[in-house]
Amino acid sequence: MKKIEVCLSPALFEFRSISENCIVVVIDVLRATTSFCAAFDSGVRTIIPVAGLDELLIYKNKGYLTAAERNGGKVEFADFGNSPTAFLKSQLHGKDLAYSTTNGTQAIELAKSSGNITVACFANLAAVSRWLHMQNIDLVILCSGWKNMFSLEDTLCAGALIATLSESRGYELTGDASDTALILWNSSKNDLNKAVENAEHYKRLSVLGHQDDLRHCFIPNSSEVVPVWDGTGFINVSSSVE
Amino acid sequence: MKKIEVCLSPALFEFRSISENCIVVVIDVLRATTSFCAAFDSGVRTIIPVAGLDELLIYKNKGYLTAAERNGGKVEFADFGNSPTAFLKSQLHGKDLAYSTTNGTQAIELAKSSGNITVACFANLAAVSRWLHMQNIDLVILCSGWKNMFSLEDTLCAGALIATLSESRGYELTGDASDTALILWNSSKNDLNKAVENAEHYKRLSVLGHQDDLRHCFIPNSSEVVPVWDGTGFINVSSSVE
Repeated sequence: MKKIEVCLSPALFEFRSISENCIVVVIDVLRATTSFCAAFDSGVRTIIPVAGLDELLIYKNKGYLTAAERNGGKVEFADFGNSPTAFLKSQLHGKDLAYSTTNGTQAIELAKSSGNITVACFANLAAVSRWLHMQNIDLVILCSGWKNMFSLEDTLCAGALIATLSESRGYELTGDASDTALILWNSSKNDLNKAVENAEHYKRLSVLGHQDDLRHCFIPNSSEVVPVWDGTGFINVSSSVE
Repeated sequence: MKKIEVCLSPALFEFRSISENCIVVVIDVLRATTSFCAAFDSGVRTIIPVAGLDELLIYKNKGYLTAAERNGGKVEFADFGNSPTAFLKSQLHGKDLAYSTTNGTQAIELAKSSGNITVACFANLAAVSRWLHMQNIDLVILCSGWKNMFSLEDTLCAGALIATLSESRGYELTGDASDTALILWNSSKNDLNKAVENAEHYKRLSVLGHQDDLRHCFIPNSSEVVPVWDGTGFINVSSSVE
């Protein structure tokens, strides 16, 4: 039986019990991993996660499309901020996108040590679950949080992913955080929008006027995208899922 | 209105938003903070938390009573392990106790930077809540966890403390972790023993044969003890509460 462990913050990743032969599933519902799915849905070919803005500028100067966000706002020199709905309105067929955010790309940076990474959000819950089933390997779900603090929406999504995975094949939950994510999801799933409206980052983005994104990010299964790390960037493997 | 923030692990303490003019409430239900209450109930005068065993041995050689636990088991040279029921069976009137555990005393070590520390558990929930009300100051609830990983029982106790505090005076919850602790507590309070029996550390202690302690640690309000940090150790201020 395969194991699932949840890390509630990037700062807890180093203390996980599963560290080898696993896939790390990075979740940043608001908004990086939802935006990854949206960018692929708009035709992007590769997403290169970049931790720092200096490095992102190098990519921009090489001709890459760039996306960057800090503290909920778009970084000026970038082509995009971190808005999934902005990506969905764009035609980006065949483009390569370098991407840097406050939390999501920092979590991905940590996950690189494992070699195997995918990203999840409510938008690709069913698609990524199907793909994970096929890999038949232990999973570490890494919640990106907000500057290393616990975030409710990422933990709820971790719980939703566990619930979806458990429907069709047995996984064993490892650690109290995985049980807790599932308890939280079960207590919130009947009114997800109400459950998240008091979350700190939800309120932060609401004040910044990102209502369209907030609506989009909690709609389940709007995307068939499965972003998978290929050693240098993420590619979408969804076409090989069916 | 006073604020309450919850840190779900010692590794998240440095990322908290409340860092000044607050009391840090350290929780280690299984078993350090429950044992602190039991030791005071048996007459102990002062508890000196000690992070390392070398330092504990120095206290022993000075004539202090010592308690030490690593990985759930008693350290051989110490007088006590980390068992609240063992303390409750003893007569320790006027003794000073030096104490070192895997998680609880490490969390206390972190909390020292704040200057104001108390410890909580299910045993002293009502007593510590009354005392905290009287202090009228922001609270950071620090869950000790297990080797920096999230633990369910500490988070449930944090939620129970928030619920108890909120009954009689308004506190504002800060951060998603405090809301989450309260949600977890509300979903578990009607059958607390069932909720915790799958928790990792509960299972670990059960295998080690600590059934008496496991029963004791989830009985609410069995103690009137309020351990408060006085700069060098904890003293029990409960007699000044009423």
